[in-house]
Amino acid sequence: MKIENHKIELRTRGFCDIHDLTPEAHRKIETSKVKNGQVTFFVVGSTAGITTVEYEPGLIKDLKVVFEKLAPENGRYYHEDTWHDGNGFSHVRASLLKPSLSVPLVNGEMTLGTWQQVILIDFDNTPRSRQVVLQIMGE
Amino acid sequence: MKIENHKIELRTRGFCDIHDLTPEAHRKIETSKVKNGQVTFFVVGSTAGITTVEYEPGLIKDLKVVFEKLAPENGRYYHEDTWHDGNGFSHVRASLLKPSLSVPLVNGEMTLGTWQQVILIDFDNTPRSRQVVLQIMGE
Amino acid sequence: MKIENHKIELRTRGFCDIHDLTPEAHRKIETSKVKNGQVTFFVVGSTAGITTVEYEPGLIKDLKVVFEKLAPENGRYYHEDTWHDGNGFSHVRASLLKPSLSVPLVNGEMTLGTWQQVILIDFDNTPRSRQVVLQIMGE
Repeated sequence: MKIENHKIELRTRGFCDIHDLTPEAHRKIETSKVKNGQVTFFVVGSTAGITTVEYEPGLIKDLKVVFEKLAPENGRYYHEDTWHDGNGFSHVRASLLKPSLSVPLVNGEMTLGTWQQVILIDFDNTPRSRQVVLQIMGE
Repeated sequence: MKIENHKIELRTRGFCDIHDLTPEAHRKIETSKVKNGQVTFFVVGSTAGITTVEYEPGLIKDLKVVFEKLAPENGRYYHEDTWHDGNGFSHVRASLLKPSLSVPLVNGEMTLGTWQQVILIDFDNTPRSRQVVLQIMGE
Repeated sequence: MKIENHKIELRTRGFCDIHDLTPEAHRKIETSKVKNGQVTFFVVGSTAGITTVEYEPGLIKDLKVVFEKLAPENGRYYHEDTWHDGNGFSHVRASLLKPSLSVPLVNGEMTLGTWQQVILIDFDNTPRSRQVVLQIMGE
């Protein structure tokens, strides 16, 4: 049983900025000694989330639309009364999407579909340096 | 430490077609040598998701209603400009719900409530053959 | 490889009652022999969910607002026809949020951000005794 803790570091622009994490995850998995088990993605912080999508330009826009509907950028948020930093919508969206995703690893490959990529969505209202923990656990 | 990778294969009809995965998961867990650890469900593909629900006919309808509200079938999706396959709503819903769920396994049983079942929701707009990876990890 | 199954037991009031699980999780992790691996939170039952948030009074209110928008308390639910217990909204919200969350454990610490706490949201329409399974897996 092995546990490997990797990091994916990236610069994001906020406002539903979407990044495909799959290529870098593949590279780390290729050099890993773990062939069967689980890959867990976890974004550090409370204004971003992780999910999967067919990574193509249309859906990137469609996800922005649905999150704007769920928690509009210009809505009224009580979070504003606490910090006055204008990112209540970012926090609410991130809590709905959640920061982690676990993908089974079978014979050295994540069990993703051909048109299914793992993405980070940064909901914040400012550019950020983001850390995604990529944990490979198994044997 | 053992890792067992199983598959649940099923035929779905799409349009928020909901399937209870719990009975087949129970059967695989019963014959497993793993008694403590984790059971991870992961649906391959970007137009379906996994969650839990009290599996009864009323809630099956209620879930269809809430996903229709979140991402209406007849809405405008930019995904349409890419593929013209009419399933933008399916992708958006699947990204919101996410494809995986991990359930602790304690003394040979998943720690589900009595009225809590693990379900697959197929959001696509056409019948599909679906594969759910069911991974049992532990000892 | 070690697997430890803990329980967090708490009394909730329902109606989007939000509890910070992080302090009790920290205490259990401190006394654990596992230093690297994963911490999985799983709430038993189909009317509650787990996610992360910056735990401050404003966002606690903001989450109530967004879930009321997603599945209003006084909406029409088919679940009512089955049980007549008035908590269709609770079930729908719980299925959207999902009952589990996995957080990587690295050098004895969960990889949470400074302003990122793990929370239980109880969506039911009545006070409950809740059990959250806290599973620590690793070495």
